[in-house]
Amino acid sequence: MHTDLVAALDIGGTKIAGALVDDQGRILRRAQRPTPAQEDGETVMGAVAAVLAELTASPMWPDVRAVGIGSAGPVDRSAGTVSPVNVPGWRGFPLVERVRSLAGGLPVELIGDGVAITAAEHWQGAAQGHDNALCMVVSTGVGGGLVLGGQVHPGPTGNAGHIGHISVDLDGDLCPCGARGCVERIASGPNIARRALSDGWRPEADGDTSAAAVARAARAGDKAAVASFERAAQALAAGIAATATLVEIDIAVIGGGVAKAGDVLFTPLRRALRDYATLSFVQRLTVAPASTGTDAGLVGAAAAALRSGSGAAAAHRLSA
Amino acid sequence: MHTDLVAALDIGGTKIAGALVDDQGRILRRAQRPTPAQEDGETVMGAVAAVLAELTASPMWPDVRAVGIGSAGPVDRSAGTVSPVNVPGWRGFPLVERVRSLAGGLPVELIGDGVAITAAEHWQGAAQGHDNALCMVVSTGVGGGLVLGGQVHPGPTGNAGHIGHISVDLDGDLCPCGARGCVERIASGPNIARRALSDGWRPEADGDTSAAAVARAARAGDKAAVASFERAAQALAAGIAATATLVEIDIAVIGGGVAKAGDVLFTPLRRALRDYATLSFVQRLTVAPASTGTDAGLVGAAAAALRSGSGAAAAHRLSA
Repeated sequence: MHTDLVAALDIGGTKIAGALVDDQGRILRRAQRPTPAQEDGETVMGAVAAVLAELTASPMWPDVRAVGIGSAGPVDRSAGTVSPVNVPGWRGFPLVERVRSLAGGLPVELIGDGVAITAAEHWQGAAQGHDNALCMVVSTGVGGGLVLGGQVHPGPTGNAGHIGHISVDLDGDLCPCGARGCVERIASGPNIARRALSDGWRPEADGDTSAAAVARAARAGDKAAVASFERAAQALAAGIAATATLVEIDIAVIGGGVAKAGDVLFTPLRRALRDYATLSFVQRLTVAPASTGTDAGLVGAAAAALRSGSGAAAAHRLSA
Repeated sequence: MHTDLVAALDIGGTKIAGALVDDQGRILRRAQRPTPAQEDGETVMGAVAAVLAELTASPMWPDVRAVGIGSAGPVDRSAGTVSPVNVPGWRGFPLVERVRSLAGGLPVELIGDGVAITAAEHWQGAAQGHDNALCMVVSTGVGGGLVLGGQVHPGPTGNAGHIGHISVDLDGDLCPCGARGCVERIASGPNIARRALSDGWRPEADGDTSAAAVARAARAGDKAAVASFERAAQALAAGIAATATLVEIDIAVIGGGVAKAGDVLFTPLRRALRDYATLSFVQRLTVAPASTGTDAGLVGAAAAALRSGSGAAAAHRLSA
């Protein structure tokens, strides 16, 4: 049986993962390198090349039709460049051109990591069957992506759905992005922990001040911990409601470390959503935890490559 | 010469306008009635029927291929119903079915009034040539619509782009919609006037307390008037930046009475936009005043009908 395959790359601040993926989203071969994030741009590219070399050496490589890349952002899909915040050696780095030349000229599709995770959740996860969805990662940062009209919507540069940096508190605390009161500035893991500490929460003897430790304290009834998750939930609700009011999503899927807090986050989030999602056409909006795992970035990059590949195939059929 | 025409209806709280429109957006015939907004639903429908009767009596009617309706919201495009806030007799009113039967079974396309104005600005106004745009009306309320990927994006229910009711101040003043700190709650004309008055602005001898009067005072240097427009500009900037960050628009077009304030609004708006639109992919975002006039609602409804008509024609060609 002949199967079309795609290659997927998931490029983050700590690791560069690669895979060969079939059209059912099954991972058939993997490769991985640590990201030399503080090195110069060519050294980082060397790690990408090493991952790709393992994939191109596979006997399955001749069946590969396209390459999908999900990268830490910002990315610029139209220019084919990436400028990941945590990889200072890459600023406007021409990743698409470099990968295309290493992959023998195959089509290369570039999207942001939030868009990649959205593609994975829409294909295999909690957003399956939803034509209009927001998928989010709430972790050290807050990222996201959109499904509109049944299709992942990367936007012209591949960064659409960047819900972490919309302001829900226009006079609020300054965010590292330069704006004030961004969703990430209130709801990310480090900000949940910071706020709980400043409101009187004290970590256990192990000194763990992670958002997971705050979640444990909240579950045990610590008031500052509960309040910090409630404030995060309020900011997430305002951002999710804004997204629904702007583009009519009917579900928000939330993954990432902070979402692992479970009811500590989701109960106040669902309550706050009723306060902010008030117009008739957004009242049916639901939230759900993400269901894809650590391979979401690879699976989503593969989905983008399959879509570009099928697009190319469709164009070929039309021109034939 | 045979030309395909469409009929357009623009349904607001004060008037119901109708027109026959050609595929260049030229208005060939008009009809209009006041909206009996406080009467029962059938009386309101009677006014729509009277407008339609004038149009169907035209010798051009046999060339009409579809009907487009832009209505005060909320609307439900999927159900074919409308529930305009200012027309209490219509709640879930089956407007599409009623218009279709009066129009001899022609296809009927329903969109919200913000989406209709967006369609007009994209076809003939300041958003022309922009594949990704937000168009807004800042007036008694704040409405809007989106162009994404070169197409007007009504959303499943026809309400997408409702920027007036996204919260940019999650602890802010309660909005009539039930949420807090909505863009409309800060930036609408009545809210600009209210804030200027409470901060010490005093109207002229004519007692005019409209936003236009506040704009005149701001131009003359009144501090409370200037500050009120600056606050409105800040809220609009946060909302526009949020929209750009979520869906990558490259222009925001602003019409409505408050936009007539000109530089009093646009200068602080452009300045505030630099504070909130900070990520690389939104930094090129521009704002521009709307350029379509009072016929925008009709022209936009016509655009929606032409699109649905051409869609039907394309489907017909495919199935032939």
